[in-house]
Amino acid sequence: MDNDTTLSALKEIVKTFCVERDWDQFHNAKDLSIGIITESAELLDHFRFKSSSEIEEMFNDSIKKLKITEELSDVLFFVLRFAQMFDIDLTAELIRKIQINNAKYPIDKCKGSNKKHSEV
Amino acid sequence: MDNDTTLSALKEIVKTFCVERDWDQFHNAKDLSIGIITESAELLDHFRFKSSSEIEEMFNDSIKKLKITEELSDVLFFVLRFAQMFDIDLTAELIRKIQINNAKYPIDKCKGSNKKHSEV
Amino acid sequence: MDNDTTLSALKEIVKTFCVERDWDQFHNAKDLSIGIITESAELLDHFRFKSSSEIEEMFNDSIKKLKITEELSDVLFFVLRFAQMFDIDLTAELIRKIQINNAKYPIDKCKGSNKKHSEV
Amino acid sequence: MDNDTTLSALKEIVKTFCVERDWDQFHNAKDLSIGIITESAELLDHFRFKSSSEIEEMFNDSIKKLKITEELSDVLFFVLRFAQMFDIDLTAELIRKIQINNAKYPIDKCKGSNKKHSEV
Repeated sequence: MDNDTTLSALKEIVKTFCVERDWDQFHNAKDLSIGIITESAELLDHFRFKSSSEIEEMFNDSIKKLKITEELSDVLFFVLRFAQMFDIDLTAELIRKIQINNAKYPIDKCKGSNKKHSEV
Repeated sequence: MDNDTTLSALKEIVKTFCVERDWDQFHNAKDLSIGIITESAELLDHFRFKSSSEIEEMFNDSIKKLKITEELSDVLFFVLRFAQMFDIDLTAELIRKIQINNAKYPIDKCKGSNKKHSEV
Repeated sequence: MDNDTTLSALKEIVKTFCVERDWDQFHNAKDLSIGIITESAELLDHFRFKSSSEIEEMFNDSIKKLKITEELSDVLFFVLRFAQMFDIDLTAELIRKIQINNAKYPIDKCKGSNKKHSEV
Repeated sequence: MDNDTTLSALKEIVKTFCVERDWDQFHNAKDLSIGIITESAELLDHFRFKSSSEIEEMFNDSIKKLKITEELSDVLFFVLRFAQMFDIDLTAELIRKIQINNAKYPIDKCKGSNKKHSEV
């Protein structure tokens, strides 16, 4: 579960799955980025042409919610694989980026506004 | 660091950043999925029209590698935010999906092949 | 203008621009598809976290509308280039696909509904 | 065919298909951009984890080439619909953009190089 699993543990699970299948040969940065964006598109696909009330209904339907969850997980799979292949510490980077953004988009200037938000 | 940070801890960091800015109002499933895919595109952008040797060079250049790392981290930011907003346990889902894929794409049928790989 | 320019004429313009720069060497199917999707993301970027009224305002602002138009045009650039490089007749294919969809999604079943729409 | 069909004619075909189904209500700028990017992802999907020789083979296989062509056409469908809904002259904009890029990326500086290319 998320509350007792580290990023490193998840990376290891993803690595094992890929190494067992001898997939290092396909997992270069360009193709892994393609993996990330095509899975992102499958996630977004669920919501195209849908109104906010229709989307809300989806999340109340456990089967539809599971489908959405699967797509999110597929994006994460390739994010973790990219990080593992290229020795990227996701936690360190996320915290570093949050600190930069805290300075760049101070709370009092951003609160309740989507002006700056698009750039974060 | 990834080896001592749980997914829940990262979700909490992302949540705090967003809540402080009162951004729950913008963070519906459709717009967060747009967030994920647009950041994925910024990652992919680094590699467009680039050969594998040019991409290899990028990873040897610490400044370029940092830029790439930032984009990956931006994708993860929105993945974590999506999971946090909609109560998704990423670890549970990733492990469930890996188990499905272990059955669906057995090692002996997938090893060294990208035939099945596109579908994972 | 769109009312007196054929698809072939536009393809020719795009081809000339690329050939003059000796870009055939970079324009394989994978990288051109990356071109299409990254430009699509720049288009979508304009609308992320934006409400429908904010988006309406954008289209009333001639500078913002121009920025949006540029991104759409960049997507089209790569679509035309892809079609030109791989001898694809876009008109023939669009009409063929519309005919398939006319049969698959008959008017009386689709009218006013987004149910089937996501699949078109 | 592309050599005797104008952009306006194609826009009209797309408009008729959508109006018959009363889809104006779903075709706002955000959702049409989602349409463009999700179809772009289906195009890109064909090439993920594939080598250049595998991709070349695909184009020699008429059924696989048709599948690729369909995805390209689906991207174009939404590009045309976006242009038609928001009164955008694609030809005028494409030519304007090419002229800008001709100045910005002069032939002698770009020839055979992908340095500037990523930015076009």
